[in-house]
Formats: sequence, C-alpha cells, structure tokens
Amino acid sequence: MTPADLPARLRDVVGDAGLVTDPDQLAGYLTDWRDAYRGRAAVVVRPATTEAVAAVVALCREAGVALVPQGGNTGLCGGAVPDASGRQVVLSLTRLRRIREVDPDNQTITVEAGVVLQQVQEAAAAVDRLFPLSLGAEGSCTIGGNLSTNAGGTGVLRYGTMRDLTLGLEVVLPDGRIWNGLRGLRKDNTGYDLKHLFIGAEGTLGVVTAAVLKLYPALRSRATAWVALPSPQAAVDLIGICRTLGGDRVTTFELMSRQSVDFVLRHAAGARDPFAAPSPWYALVELGDTLPDAGLDRLLEAALTEAVDRELVLDAVVASGSAQVAGLWALREGISEAQNHEGPSFKHDVTVPVSSIAAFVERTDRALRAAVPGIRIVVYGHIGDGNLHYNLSGPVGGSGDGFRARADELARIVYDSTSTFDGSISAEHGLGQAKRDVMADYKDPVALQLMRGLKDLLDPAGLMNPGKVLPD
Amino acid sequence: MTPADLPARLRDVVGDAGLVTDPDQLAGYLTDWRDAYRGRAAVVVRPATTEAVAAVVALCREAGVALVPQGGNTGLCGGAVPDASGRQVVLSLTRLRRIREVDPDNQTITVEAGVVLQQVQEAAAAVDRLFPLSLGAEGSCTIGGNLSTNAGGTGVLRYGTMRDLTLGLEVVLPDGRIWNGLRGLRKDNTGYDLKHLFIGAEGTLGVVTAAVLKLYPALRSRATAWVALPSPQAAVDLIGICRTLGGDRVTTFELMSRQSVDFVLRHAAGARDPFAAPSPWYALVELGDTLPDAGLDRLLEAALTEAVDRELVLDAVVASGSAQVAGLWALREGISEAQNHEGPSFKHDVTVPVSSIAAFVERTDRALRAAVPGIRIVVYGHIGDGNLHYNLSGPVGGSGDGFRARADELARIVYDSTSTFDGSISAEHGLGQAKRDVMADYKDPVALQLMRGLKDLLDPAGLMNPGKVLPD
Repeated sequence: MTPADLPARLRDVVGDAGLVTDPDQLAGYLTDWRDAYRGRAAVVVRPATTEAVAAVVALCREAGVALVPQGGNTGLCGGAVPDASGRQVVLSLTRLRRIREVDPDNQTITVEAGVVLQQVQEAAAAVDRLFPLSLGAEGSCTIGGNLSTNAGGTGVLRYGTMRDLTLGLEVVLPDGRIWNGLRGLRKDNTGYDLKHLFIGAEGTLGVVTAAVLKLYPALRSRATAWVALPSPQAAVDLIGICRTLGGDRVTTFELMSRQSVDFVLRHAAGARDPFAAPSPWYALVELGDTLPDAGLDRLLEAALTEAVDRELVLDAVVASGSAQVAGLWALREGISEAQNHEGPSFKHDVTVPVSSIAAFVERTDRALRAAVPGIRIVVYGHIGDGNLHYNLSGPVGGSGDGFRARADELARIVYDSTSTFDGSISAEHGLGQAKRDVMADYKDPVALQLMRGLKDLLDPAGLMNPGKVLPD
Repeated sequence: MTPADLPARLRDVVGDAGLVTDPDQLAGYLTDWRDAYRGRAAVVVRPATTEAVAAVVALCREAGVALVPQGGNTGLCGGAVPDASGRQVVLSLTRLRRIREVDPDNQTITVEAGVVLQQVQEAAAAVDRLFPLSLGAEGSCTIGGNLSTNAGGTGVLRYGTMRDLTLGLEVVLPDGRIWNGLRGLRKDNTGYDLKHLFIGAEGTLGVVTAAVLKLYPALRSRATAWVALPSPQAAVDLIGICRTLGGDRVTTFELMSRQSVDFVLRHAAGARDPFAAPSPWYALVELGDTLPDAGLDRLLEAALTEAVDRELVLDAVVASGSAQVAGLWALREGISEAQNHEGPSFKHDVTVPVSSIAAFVERTDRALRAAVPGIRIVVYGHIGDGNLHYNLSGPVGGSGDGFRARADELARIVYDSTSTFDGSISAEHGLGQAKRDVMADYKDPVALQLMRGLKDLLDPAGLMNPGKVLPD
C-alpha cells in the first residue's frame, strides 16, 4: 500500500463519519486551542472503537505514514499538533467516549480515551465518589490526553498526578496489536508494570484507548484561608505546620508573589485585596474532609495561630462563606489572564524539591533581575508539589519586541536555576514539540539513551507522533 | 577475561572485606530465610558504594557471568537465591547502608539499597514523619529488596505499595553504567518515567542502588475495632461505609474467615475470642489521624452503628486500650504461624477487584471443596486492597502426603478463579523463581512479549538474575 491509498483504506475501517478531509473541518484539528502551534494533515481519522483504532494504526504502519494522536486538543506544548509536511494522519480519539464501568466498591471507573475529564468527575459524583484530577481545561480535555501528558492540576498535593490515579490501561501498540491491561487492582506483582511506559509518553509509544482510574471518597467539608507571608520559606514552614496537624486534609497550598496578585487586582473585575497593607507573598490554603462537620475552620485557625507565634505569617483570614472562598480563588486563578494585559510574557512550568523553594526563588529572581532590570516576575503555583509557574513580563515602559527577543535567554536562566536544585523543567505540561530539544540539555544522558531505546523497541518505524518528546 | 579470572578481579574492586568465598560464610547467601530455595555460587560480592556496584556489574558482564542481586534475603519466591549451577555471582547490597538525606520539608528520605526498612521508619520518626511501608520482615528486609519486589504490607490501603512511595531511583544498568534518577520531585514530565521499569523487576533489568522515598505526616491517634460479619460482601459494604465517613483515616481493613481465627484460638498462647458466639467472618478495622484528639472512636462507632442498622454486622467491639488493640492484632497476625500446626499447607497470594471479593470467595471455596471434601480454607488478608491470602490445609485426619501431592492442582483452582475475576496471581510477593512459569499461563500474551522485549533491550546478554520473573 502507498500513502496515496491510505485514505480509502481508512474509510473502509471508520466509514464516512470517521474520516475528515474537508479543509474547513480539518482546520480545528491542525492547531492547538491557543493557536500557538500549527500543522497540516491530509486526513483526520476518527475511529469509534478500540478495534478500529488498532486497524487504523495497522494501516498507517503498512503505508509507512506517521500518526499524531489527539484528544481534546487543549495541550500547551504542541504535542497533539501535526507537523508542517501535510503527510501525517491525525488520529482523533474523541469518538471513544464510553464510560465502560463505574465500580464504587472497588473505587474505580473504566473509561475510554475520548471521555472528557468533567464527565468522569460527574460520573464519580453520581455514585458519591470523587475523581480528583482537576484543571482549567476539564470541560474539554480528554482522559486520553490527561494520561498521555500525565496531567497535574490543583489536586496533586493530596491525590497525585494522573499517573498516580491510574490502575490499568488499554493501549494500541505501534504494530496495531491491542494490549489489554485494563485491570482495577491495587496490587499486582506479576512482572514489569507496563502501564507506566505509556502514561506521559504523549502518544510516542502507542495509543491509549481506555483506562481504569481510581476514585476516592467524596469530600463534604472544606476550609479556605488567605495568608500574607514575608517569604517563600515562611510558606514552606507553614505547609509543614498544616500537614503535621492536618495530614492529607491539606488539599491546596498555592503560593503567589505580590506581583502576581498586583496584576489580578489591577485587571480582574471585582478583585479585592483581603488585607489593607501589601505583603511580598501570599498563600491560598485549603483543607478538605469526608466528614461534613470536621471542624476544619478550627483546625486551620490552630495552624495559623502556631504560624503567627513562630512569626511566619503577617496576616491571615479564614473565609467565612462560599462567596468569600470564590473571591480568594479568583485572586489565584486570575493570574494567568491578568498577566496578558501587561504586554508579552513568557511562561515556565518547573518543579524543585519543596525544601529548595526559597533558595530557588532567590537565585532565579536575582539572575533574572540582573539580565533584565525592572523585569516583572509573576511567580506562583502549587508549591505543596514544589511546582512553580515562573512567568515573566517585561519592565514597565520597555519595548515589547525587545523583551520578546530574549525569550530563549530568559528560559535558560530559569531552567539553569531549576537544574541547579535538581528540579524539572517540565512539571505538568509535558514536552510536546515545545520543550523536546531543550529537555535534552538538562536530562541525564543515560536516561536519554534509555528513552531512545524504549522508543526504538516499541516503535521501530518511528511512526508514532514523531517530532514529539524525544529530540531529533 | 574468563569466569575463572573473575574472583580476583572482583577482589580488586571490593577488597577482602567485600568478597565472600569461604563455604561456611557463603551458606547464608545461598538459601532464603525459610530454606525453601537453595542454590550455589562461586562467590558472593559485597560492594559498599554505587561505583563499586557498577564496577562489579561491568566485570561480570565482561566475564559473561550472571549476577543475582540480594538484599535482606527475606523474599518468599526465591528471587534472590542463585541457581544450582554454582556459576552465578551473588551481589549482596547490604553494605550500601547510608541514609543519604532526610528532608522533612520535602517529605522525602534518600537511602541506599542496603538500608533495612525499619531504619528508614526510625529515621522518618526522628523528624516527626512517617515512612508507611510496614511488613513482617521489616527488621531485616532491605529497601533494595522492597523496591525490587514492589513490597506491599499492611499500609497499602492508605499509602500504596513501594512503587507508590518512590520518587526517584539510582540504578546500575546491566552494562555497568549508572543511571542517576535520584530526584525528589512530585511532578516531572520530561519524558518516559524510567523508575517504574526497575521497581518490581526483581533485579532482572538492573541493580537498584539508592532511592528517594516519600514521607508522610506522623499519625497521632488511632482506633481499632473487631467486627463479626455474616459474609465477605458485608465486609465490602462495611469498607464503603468506613471510607465514606472517614476517607483515608481508614488505614487497615483485614478480613478473616472463621477457620483462620479458629486456628489462632487453638494454637496461639493467650488468644481469646472477643465474642461469645462464633461468626463466619471477621474484620479488623483501624482508623488513624494526624490529630491526637481526632475523635476516631466516635467515628468508628458511627460507622459500625450504620452497618448494624443495615444488618451488615453481627457483633463489634472498639478496643479500649493498647492491650486490647494488641490482642486483636494478634488474632490477625497469628494466622500464618497457627496454620503450621495443622499439617502441610499451601499459600496463595492473590488480588481481585474489591467489588468481586464475595463472588470470588464463593466460587473458589466451592471449587476447592469439590476437589478436596473437608479441605480447611484459611482465607484472610488486606481486602481493602482486594488482596487475599488463600491458604489451604488438608481435611482433619487426612493423609498429609496425599494432600501435599495436590499442590499444583489446588493452586490452579485458586489461580483459575482469580483469573476469572480479572485478578492477579501474585499480589505482593512477586514472581521470583516460584511463579514465573505459572504466571505465563495467566498473562496477556502481548504483555508477556513486551516484558521480553524490555528484558532484551536492557539486558541483551541475559546476565541479570536469569531464571527469575520471566519464563524460559
């Protein structure tokens, strides 16, 4: 079979409804939601069953044509966007949208790759359980994409990443065979744990078609505080106090620089500073419990009192109702949008050990200010996981184009500093096409060689999402 | 280099203190602690650093001699015992015993492979943290062995297996290179997650030399109940009630058949039935909390009251002091030893989904009783994880030898039933040499082929613990 024969053969498998060739309809599959990456493709194929996915993969292999798996297309690193050649086939998984089983006793749910994250959350809630993965795109991102990027979000501190939430997988391998590893077991020591090969692999080793995911007991109470802090180290110390007292009741611990909050106060409608005087740092802390009357407000106040006694906290307020809770969360969630009003910006998503947060911020800030005097550093994130979004806006009144030209240089400063503290230059967004080359400069060479070996073992023809994850 | 040259070359690396050749000293390394497996070896090599391990591995590769990594030698499947050829080298990791770092703020500890599990627990406790892995052999098993077998134990319900407790690894690869993946990060999406290749691989893909492990807040209160139940399904329903109310406060949920408890009452000194009348099933339930005054007794009583209202519970007692708690745990922990007084026994360690427990027990019991009328079925285990120890003693007054001869037949009955419910024939003990062949009969053929591919990729010469995990 030649590549030219492929569309007709694909149509035999998926029917007219499963093949997109019309240029207008194609467009949405060829760029990401931010329009940051664009590619071309001769055809988008949309199989509706695992067997059809397997047949599509086998046909593409036979024709020697590369495949780009795609879910909700909400990624931030271009991992689901085809290249510019126009020869790649986009394999959309959005028609694999069955929830195959909900098992409250086993605390599991079995879903296909194209199911939207929010639907999984809702199916869990319908049986009085929690599926804890939660992130901005949850209304349109799919489970297959969450798995392939090992998605993070706001629940990681308590529940871990998508990898930690996965018990079993069904995967179409690059040769078209189906590996059925869909088992809902907490313990299984019968050989190598294959699912971890495919989670976070961004479709470069195979196509995830379904998964068994963990559910948790529903939370019935929460308490939320906004805390003014003198330093990142004070925030790290406060995490320690909260966890020592409350253990895994601590579901959220977000750090924000004053610069981050300043932007929100300036640009977000209705945003209000909870305190009269500004502070250099803030934390949003939330506790949750399965009990409806768990006394979380008192627990949070006890933690804050201890922190005040240790001079870690400048000011603090425990929210007294859902409107106030929403107002505090809006300060945190408005940062990314608010920064867009302040000219061009660069975003970096990094992790360091929690114990290194203070030294890391100090070193990175200093290096950035030396490189660009007046630079506005919007650093914030899930510091309970050691994860900071180290985002940068240029100096007030500076040249946007001049600042924009320094993107790579400033990224290097952030990544070099991250590397100094044994951190990761991609915490929760993956590599895609955005970071695959720069990753290689910071990766252990032995690890890089192992990764290449795995790729060659599973995908010797190199047809699974080429140009992603691994450097050329 | 020939195999005959190897001992002298190894001595150059590890010195006299690192080489065992004296037959009396060798003996302890050539059999497991139960003396269930025996092998031979020309030499035991005991390097004290990661670099020395790497040099040893490289030398063995050069000589074409197979290596058997060994930790505390407490495994149950013969994974650390050499074969009978006398040509293999035992690589003991027990001199790699440094705790490299304890980081309470990051909630991590970095330890070498030879550190004993209990030392890790103690080092965590010294900084007011918990390392939650706990199992019978904790006073002598090592972290390297825990990692290589993905150890389970009594904390899995709440904290997961060793795999879930691991953030980073240092591994000597079969070619003698060192992969340094010792990072203490909760989020790292910079490519394939290599550590999962080596966890649970029983030394067949490389030698784990160090790890970064997760710590948790210390628990300061607990409540313990002993519950009489009419059926396994009632136990599963009770788990649901406990978790819905208490969430992850539920740290223990152990199920025991009356037969199991009967053996303990008969053979264990001081064992006492908490209830006047016998019941077909029992559960040991424990809650834990970081707060010293968490009201766990009231919570447990509320859960049990709901269960009584739903007619799930026949009787229940919440322990009122540490002596009573110890007495209840002794009923659970005495089962394995008590069974040894009742003639030959077979032990099986399996998992099924929690929701299938009742149907699985009903089906398996029925098949076993049909095969051996009067068989005494000692089924118990961590049913919060779906993990049952399905252990068998022969009929009263029957022939021990006659029963012993049916080991394989009865194992097949248990494994066939496990397989019917999409379960695992090795929950927490691994495969070693004991189960590697039978595993192949129950494993997805695609998975088996992927496992073989990984083995060939990482260890093309087949020198890393040959004869373990993978069938011939």
